[in-house]
Amino acid sequence: MAAGAEETGPARVSETDRIKAFSDGVFAIVITLLVLELRVPEYHKGGLLEGLRHEGASYLAFAVSFAYIGVIWLNHHALLRLIRGTALALNWINLAILFGAVIIPFPTAVLASAFTHGDAADQRAAVALYALAAALMSAPWLAFFAYLHRHPALRAAEVDPDHVRAQRARPLTGLVLYGLSGLLGWFVNPVLGLILIIVMIAYHAVTSEGLRAGPLGRLWGRRRG
Amino acid sequence: MAAGAEETGPARVSETDRIKAFSDGVFAIVITLLVLELRVPEYHKGGLLEGLRHEGASYLAFAVSFAYIGVIWLNHHALLRLIRGTALALNWINLAILFGAVIIPFPTAVLASAFTHGDAADQRAAVALYALAAALMSAPWLAFFAYLHRHPALRAAEVDPDHVRAQRARPLTGLVLYGLSGLLGWFVNPVLGLILIIVMIAYHAVTSEGLRAGPLGRLWGRRRG
Amino acid sequence: MAAGAEETGPARVSETDRIKAFSDGVFAIVITLLVLELRVPEYHKGGLLEGLRHEGASYLAFAVSFAYIGVIWLNHHALLRLIRGTALALNWINLAILFGAVIIPFPTAVLASAFTHGDAADQRAAVALYALAAALMSAPWLAFFAYLHRHPALRAAEVDPDHVRAQRARPLTGLVLYGLSGLLGWFVNPVLGLILIIVMIAYHAVTSEGLRAGPLGRLWGRRRG
Amino acid sequence: MAAGAEETGPARVSETDRIKAFSDGVFAIVITLLVLELRVPEYHKGGLLEGLRHEGASYLAFAVSFAYIGVIWLNHHALLRLIRGTALALNWINLAILFGAVIIPFPTAVLASAFTHGDAADQRAAVALYALAAALMSAPWLAFFAYLHRHPALRAAEVDPDHVRAQRARPLTGLVLYGLSGLLGWFVNPVLGLILIIVMIAYHAVTSEGLRAGPLGRLWGRRRG
Repeated sequence: MAAGAEETGPARVSETDRIKAFSDGVFAIVITLLVLELRVPEYHKGGLLEGLRHEGASYLAFAVSFAYIGVIWLNHHALLRLIRGTALALNWINLAILFGAVIIPFPTAVLASAFTHGDAADQRAAVALYALAAALMSAPWLAFFAYLHRHPALRAAEVDPDHVRAQRARPLTGLVLYGLSGLLGWFVNPVLGLILIIVMIAYHAVTSEGLRAGPLGRLWGRRRG
Repeated sequence: MAAGAEETGPARVSETDRIKAFSDGVFAIVITLLVLELRVPEYHKGGLLEGLRHEGASYLAFAVSFAYIGVIWLNHHALLRLIRGTALALNWINLAILFGAVIIPFPTAVLASAFTHGDAADQRAAVALYALAAALMSAPWLAFFAYLHRHPALRAAEVDPDHVRAQRARPLTGLVLYGLSGLLGWFVNPVLGLILIIVMIAYHAVTSEGLRAGPLGRLWGRRRG
Repeated sequence: MAAGAEETGPARVSETDRIKAFSDGVFAIVITLLVLELRVPEYHKGGLLEGLRHEGASYLAFAVSFAYIGVIWLNHHALLRLIRGTALALNWINLAILFGAVIIPFPTAVLASAFTHGDAADQRAAVALYALAAALMSAPWLAFFAYLHRHPALRAAEVDPDHVRAQRARPLTGLVLYGLSGLLGWFVNPVLGLILIIVMIAYHAVTSEGLRAGPLGRLWGRRRG
Repeated sequence: MAAGAEETGPARVSETDRIKAFSDGVFAIVITLLVLELRVPEYHKGGLLEGLRHEGASYLAFAVSFAYIGVIWLNHHALLRLIRGTALALNWINLAILFGAVIIPFPTAVLASAFTHGDAADQRAAVALYALAAALMSAPWLAFFAYLHRHPALRAAEVDPDHVRAQRARPLTGLVLYGLSGLLGWFVNPVLGLILIIVMIAYHAVTSEGLRAGPLGRLWGRRRG
């Protein structure tokens, strides 16, 4: 199990495996912790149903954030398929990606609270916070692709440099458009901002296996084992 | 570790492994998070025992939901043995299955609260909510079997198409009978509805390794390693 | 990855692996969730240190339960080394073992609360509850050894039947002596009961790798990889 | 999967694998649980943004502790690469290391609370508590290196005894300087103490792959798979 001095072999595989296992653990926990924000409402005898109905925004926020973390997990999944080894800097970039995922329950709870108990100003603040978190979360993905581009030795054998370069478009889009969602939610209308956030999550869902870059489409094709 | 261009080999196995690991992580977390609903009751000096006794419904709700998630885990276990590869759509169906498992602590807490602090109307609402969650949870299982039926290339080599078809009966039964439990709990008697829910959980426990489909019984026989 | 029809090979190993992974996940989560019971005390400006000191019982309860779950994990570790395959009944016995581990944060929180805010009656109730939970937790371990004894095909190749039989002594001791701790704590003195509980945890720590059964000592010897 | 009587082979590897998996699970959970300390602030309609701003200390405490646990994980990562097998004593030393990681959310919450709601005395107490936890946490690392030094059979084949000896310097530095941070925070200024804590975390981040010990630098070089 110890790292061998040689560059190849089972030890190397084990090393990326441990990053995968740790990351998957974090994603699994954070997607599950979301449920802790669904609280039994305060109610008087006979008022439970009414109380539950009042919490509608919490359920929506829960569902959106569940899908969002699912999307991040699938994207991360595809991300780690690009590498065959790791390095200290890459470990830290990965921790920054996980940081972005781990905080999601917090803006989710703020969002649910603002749409349940707050007024329009609170909703604007909550949508802007969610969008800000999502935008900042895109930055370490950019760093990951940039690092991988500069260190070809870490790239998995089958991965085309052009493919790695092409992927930068997605976190850049995320950075810009999540930022825009926040501005939209803050200056125009919180519900519009929220809708753009949901559209962006759907965009990342659809492209989770990577943007096609010509000849590489084959590799990212439908069936994988 | 990177996905190979070829359809077989270790990369494929690793891919389904990562879904298994992620799913197992989610199940392990959600079955453990249930304990957070067991709270030390409010009590005055000398009143702890009395306070604990008053929380009886919480303990029952905890035990039922623990068994329920255990059942889902065993079923999911058997489910993933049917596939030899995955695809983006299957990943999303799997996430929908996990969504169903992840929310369980919430209707559990509502149920415990209604039977501890609520009246008959609250109990009806809580049983209906639990049943509704359980019924909806059956839908992605149906989708999984349907998808696998239409994409035979993803089926594990030893798995008989008839076996996959036969399994659809279980989530269908779940959808119908959990729905019925909710109606029973809402319109007739919450305790009756709850009993039917428990019967359904026991049904899924007993059939967790799949309904026998003739020649396939051998494969699903008792001993497995 | 699908289960093969044959009795040996990688599929078998993968099957017990998934139980190990799920169990380890549960242990890892429950040992970590304990920290959630350590709450920042209520305090007025300048009173934080005093507030923290007042929570001494919580820290002790946390440390004891952390060690307890660590002990259970090590014991479980050794337990799963005894098997080479699994079966539906064994899966359920394992879930019952996990159930015992998962509830620990609850009696821990009750114990901490009773020794911080309660009187002698509350402490008696809390110690009795902790001991009851620990005693009941021993039952599925007995069932595990009994099942394995009756189904030799599931035993790992190197494991001596006498060794399996010898292990039954430990959960039996647990059942009896944890029960006794509860009676001692309830009828005589809660602190005495608590001390006996701690002694029992230490006993299980020391014997976690299994009681020596003559010729098998070699197998359970010190170094293992 | 059962432990073989022989000293080498897959069983050995599986044994250290299970410790890795358990430890990674604990790290993944505790780094994610930190988010539970980020609570939606109490606010009146229209006051959400103001309320969020008031919680600035919580965000900082969250970020510092996230980085801290990330650092511990990377260090632990490198630690387990040093061994090829385990032993009961080593398992307990590892549990003590995990204990140190698991408690971090508690001093983090105390720190956040003191800098949000407390006065200078509370801040001194909170910084001293955080530093004390960090200092004590270094002790089992020392024990790990000492144990490994005395039991060369557990060392991974490629690991130089001098390397193991050289590593003791890090937890010793931690023990002394985290202790000093606490004294500084308590007797001089809480912010100064906090800054020294952050410097120490950065030190452990930079040296996470082990201090170079001459000829071994090659082994710990940049690229690893």
